Amino acid sequence: MGRVLYDLAGADPALRFSPFCWRIRMALAHKDLEVEAIPWRFTEKDRIAFSGQGLVPVLVDGDRTLHDSWAIAEYLEAAYPHRPSLFGGPEAQAVTRFVNGWTDSVLHPWIARMVVRDILDCIRPEDAGYFRESRETRFGMTLEQFVAAREETLPEFRRALQPLRLALRGQSFLAGEAPAHADYIVFGAFMWARSVSPFRLLEADDPVHAWRGRMLGLFDGLAAGAPGHDLQAQGSGAAR
Amino acid sequence: MGRVLYDLAGADPALRFSPFCWRIRMALAHKDLEVEAIPWRFTEKDRIAFSGQGLVPVLVDGDRTLHDSWAIAEYLEAAYPHRPSLFGGPEAQAVTRFVNGWTDSVLHPWIARMVVRDILDCIRPEDAGYFRESRETRFGMTLEQFVAAREETLPEFRRALQPLRLALRGQSFLAGEAPAHADYIVFGAFMWARSVSPFRLLEADDPVHAWRGRMLGLFDGLAAGAPGHDLQAQGSGAAR
Repeated sequence: MGRVLYDLAGADPALRFSPFCWRIRMALAHKDLEVEAIPWRFTEKDRIAFSGQGLVPVLVDGDRTLHDSWAIAEYLEAAYPHRPSLFGGPEAQAVTRFVNGWTDSVLHPWIARMVVRDILDCIRPEDAGYFRESRETRFGMTLEQFVAAREETLPEFRRALQPLRLALRGQSFLAGEAPAHADYIVFGAFMWARSVSPFRLLEADDPVHAWRGRMLGLFDGLAAGAPGHDLQAQGSGAAR
Repeated sequence: MGRVLYDLAGADPALRFSPFCWRIRMALAHKDLEVEAIPWRFTEKDRIAFSGQGLVPVLVDGDRTLHDSWAIAEYLEAAYPHRPSLFGGPEAQAVTRFVNGWTDSVLHPWIARMVVRDILDCIRPEDAGYFRESRETRFGMTLEQFVAAREETLPEFRRALQPLRLALRGQSFLAGEAPAHADYIVFGAFMWARSVSPFRLLEADDPVHAWRGRMLGLFDGLAAGAPGHDLQAQGSGAAR
């Protein structure tokens, strides 16, 4: 039996923009596990109803069905112990949960404020109503209000990345000299932004910018080759 | 040769309130290493001039002199490899740097806003001028303005702890089922607050409150037995 990932897609089925799905795309590549990442849209709840819930990523691995990006990462680590470790041991796995918690509760709300309006331009017209309504309810403001505020709040967003800068001061990746799941969790948020928005989040001299560049190049450019905006070129001031 | 830690003290030499020094007190206990933690005050720069700088913690371990809490933790891990590990491996050590960066750049500024005025009441009169001037310059407001704002900003402070809550949802400590340096880093900030201020930071039903209680009890109550305010009793509504 094959391995299938239900992966959030835009109107263009090649555009994959879920930060949670990107965590798993990178984790599967880290473990050198093949996967068919099939496009799935917000409103196609029926297609993943077999998973017992309505959100992606959903991973079908042989006869196992899994959902929730953290649970999937734990599953992959346990099910494929002889492949490269996603964490580097139980203590590292535990501390990575803090990175996961920071990403979910701090980084994602910030990225959402920066790019959520741009998602409207990337998804199918029939999904736009669901998207606008669910997000405006969640955030308590219109998507257009986010756009109006983002230039003003950009400096505060960049300050919120300071824990990343301090961690990267002494090492190339959050997990040390080689990347691991802590990196994929944070990187998923930047892939979300890159996939849907031309808005420039990072300055070219930001250590987070350099780290993102290293992440884009991993696994033969898995992420760099995905449809999205050329943020590295933007950041460096090069021609697009 | 013995092992000596220069440890920030209040007017009462038994009151030790530096978050950075607490990280090292806990790390030394974790490694089961004896230490003489000698009191040092803000203005006694000359007493630690031999370390080449003017901040504590300064650890003198035989013929080695070390400063900077992260550098000391890395030293202890490398110098005492057969004692219990402070991290659990190189990947865990790397990811712990992110916890360190978050604590330094997010948690400490928050705790400072909550308790910095109360420190004035704990230190020697001759150190009060240095303390007020250096902190008011650093923060750009008077110490009294912090007190006026803290009730108002308390809900925002508690929201900023959400990464801790999410991490602790599935495990007893940040480092997993047993505590390690990631825990000591964050706990140092709470010991800082507990040492100097009766202000109640956490609600009794907060998972961070329960975690702090577990931390206070470690190493035969090393932290619980230190002079400070009885935050656990406060939190639980018990008599003081």
